[in-house]
Amino acid sequence: MPNALVLGAGMVGSVMAADLVDDPDFSVTIADVREEALVAARRRCGERAIRTERADLSDPRRIEALARDHDIVLGALSSKLGLLALRAVIAAGRNYCDISFMPEDAWSLSDSAQRAGVTAVVDCGVAPGMSNMMAGFGASQLDACQHIEIYVGGLPRMPRWPFLYKAGFSPHDVIEEYVRPARVVENGRVVVKEALSEPELMNFEGVGTLEAFNTDGLRSLAHFLKAPFMKEKTLRYPGHIEIMRIFRETGLFSEEPMAIRSSHDAPLVLVRPRDVTAALMFPKWTYEQGEEDLTVMRVVVEGERDGGSRRFTWDLLDFYDRMTQTTSMSRTTALPCTIIARMIASGEIHMPGVIPPEMLGRQPGLLDKVLKRLEQRGVRFTATVC
Amino acid sequence: MPNALVLGAGMVGSVMAADLVDDPDFSVTIADVREEALVAARRRCGERAIRTERADLSDPRRIEALARDHDIVLGALSSKLGLLALRAVIAAGRNYCDISFMPEDAWSLSDSAQRAGVTAVVDCGVAPGMSNMMAGFGASQLDACQHIEIYVGGLPRMPRWPFLYKAGFSPHDVIEEYVRPARVVENGRVVVKEALSEPELMNFEGVGTLEAFNTDGLRSLAHFLKAPFMKEKTLRYPGHIEIMRIFRETGLFSEEPMAIRSSHDAPLVLVRPRDVTAALMFPKWTYEQGEEDLTVMRVVVEGERDGGSRRFTWDLLDFYDRMTQTTSMSRTTALPCTIIARMIASGEIHMPGVIPPEMLGRQPGLLDKVLKRLEQRGVRFTATVC
Repeated sequence: MPNALVLGAGMVGSVMAADLVDDPDFSVTIADVREEALVAARRRCGERAIRTERADLSDPRRIEALARDHDIVLGALSSKLGLLALRAVIAAGRNYCDISFMPEDAWSLSDSAQRAGVTAVVDCGVAPGMSNMMAGFGASQLDACQHIEIYVGGLPRMPRWPFLYKAGFSPHDVIEEYVRPARVVENGRVVVKEALSEPELMNFEGVGTLEAFNTDGLRSLAHFLKAPFMKEKTLRYPGHIEIMRIFRETGLFSEEPMAIRSSHDAPLVLVRPRDVTAALMFPKWTYEQGEEDLTVMRVVVEGERDGGSRRFTWDLLDFYDRMTQTTSMSRTTALPCTIIARMIASGEIHMPGVIPPEMLGRQPGLLDKVLKRLEQRGVRFTATVC
Repeated sequence: MPNALVLGAGMVGSVMAADLVDDPDFSVTIADVREEALVAARRRCGERAIRTERADLSDPRRIEALARDHDIVLGALSSKLGLLALRAVIAAGRNYCDISFMPEDAWSLSDSAQRAGVTAVVDCGVAPGMSNMMAGFGASQLDACQHIEIYVGGLPRMPRWPFLYKAGFSPHDVIEEYVRPARVVENGRVVVKEALSEPELMNFEGVGTLEAFNTDGLRSLAHFLKAPFMKEKTLRYPGHIEIMRIFRETGLFSEEPMAIRSSHDAPLVLVRPRDVTAALMFPKWTYEQGEEDLTVMRVVVEGERDGGSRRFTWDLLDFYDRMTQTTSMSRTTALPCTIIARMIASGEIHMPGVIPPEMLGRQPGLLDKVLKRLEQRGVRFTATVC
């Protein structure tokens, strides 16, 4: 019976543990430095036996030692610990499946993973993750792939004025999305667009009209797939983007320190406007206990096959799960990772190296199997081919 | 030949001086603590002889001494010096006409003005000012006055994203308008409305559609006129109000100090969010050299006369004056004040006390005379009676 180790007992890690522990084939350990997070993860797993390990996972030696005691490792740490954890798991010689969304290029470690015989799948959530598998699958079905478009958003089920948004993950990362230039591929070249640019209104069954804007989310796809047009856009309720553009234009997201004096005789203090904005805004961006979210996603892959045109579309609309009180964000992110981790543990996937999910998507039958297993867990994509 | 003293050589004071110095009947002194403002005022007066006096006008003894050397005083100081200057001019026993928009109730000094035999007209700009005269005139023409509505806005001629606004006067006072509850009169009672509330779209010939919102601008009208419905609303290009409501809701106008830490090892600093917002926003709210503004205003006074209904409407649309490079804001504010000051100096107006302009509007023929003199100076109101 394989021993699985989940790194991180946050919203996503605890859902990973709960999914794996349901499986009689696995014994599960979850590690985190926060005792209260471990308690919450144990609660989420209910009656089922789970081991918890209090460990400071910013220490790579701690990760390496823990990994050695297990057969397969799942990563659900914050993005800034992503690369460090990947390196430590490879050093331990264990297979890995990760959703940390690290800012660095994970595949820089691919050679060392290969040498260690380690299969390490990264970016293995919903987007990136399922979107990459679909892109890889679609491209493999076409003689020439022309377009890859990914639209994705995690949203509160009930939008409320003024922001019409809550952040399912670090609000700091959200602001980063609103200021960092977005790289897209046009005519086969990487083109840099302004953040929040090219807003377009799009209709989504069951949600209504949303607004999509360019984000820097292609990541590995821009390197490993060869379509002349590729873009990722993030979805928000209409209105949110304009507010964020105005905040940015005003300078409220600036990290340049400003000297501020509150009155004539007050001392000058240095502050970065973004810190003030974040302190004011983030409490309003935080989901309340039990507040419902949704995940909406569309992946379009288009091109030529047998002299005709063909288009693959996948749509997802997933809601907060009231039964298990689990956010859609954490379920749609955790479950692709646990499904792939099982396939690695069973030997079904054996690809030493650091593997972006588009490489898995090319494997015959793999995407179908993943979609079926997601559906068994209540996450239903609708596929259309035309 | 009467000697006139203008307190304050800012945008409005310098236009007052230039208007008075054109008049062979007046000799004019303008006083300010800022040498560069005095230089600019002298330049605006061109070849014509004007005296300048460098004086710290936050010192009431200085104002009183200067006032004693003159026959009539005009006030164009900032709102926070308004009451102090009024008191000093009364103490000097000189007649006064002021546009300072002081936050305090000026008529608390009315008894002392009466005892000194001083006629002191306050709030004598465009709104407050002309609006009060029109309200007073309209009410005097009706058997029962039902409605007094004042709509006024000072706007850039070319609105630009994101604010669609520039501040013709202190931006701090503008933010105050966006947070201070607005008092209106409904069914004969003073009702307090939220700032920025009850936005309504209205069409104005020559500008297009503007958005009006409640502001706390009735001031003396709520005390001295007895209409069951009275309100003042401020006009902006559509869109501005919503942005300001969002800023306010986010907490960006809050004056509550917050403890901000820029990084884990940075010290905590205390800042008031409004100071940060103002530091970011005000540079974008400042008119550029030669940038054109406009003033749009509508005053409606409605009620019964001789058993029928009657409505008086005055409309103003005034633009930046390219010839003299004078903003509309400063012309429309300064000229009612210089016109009334002349009438006080000539003895045409003699009403010892602190006089709000609605009391002038009731005097037979006075409003017509003021409107004619404004028109001679290029500020044209259109009056409609129906």
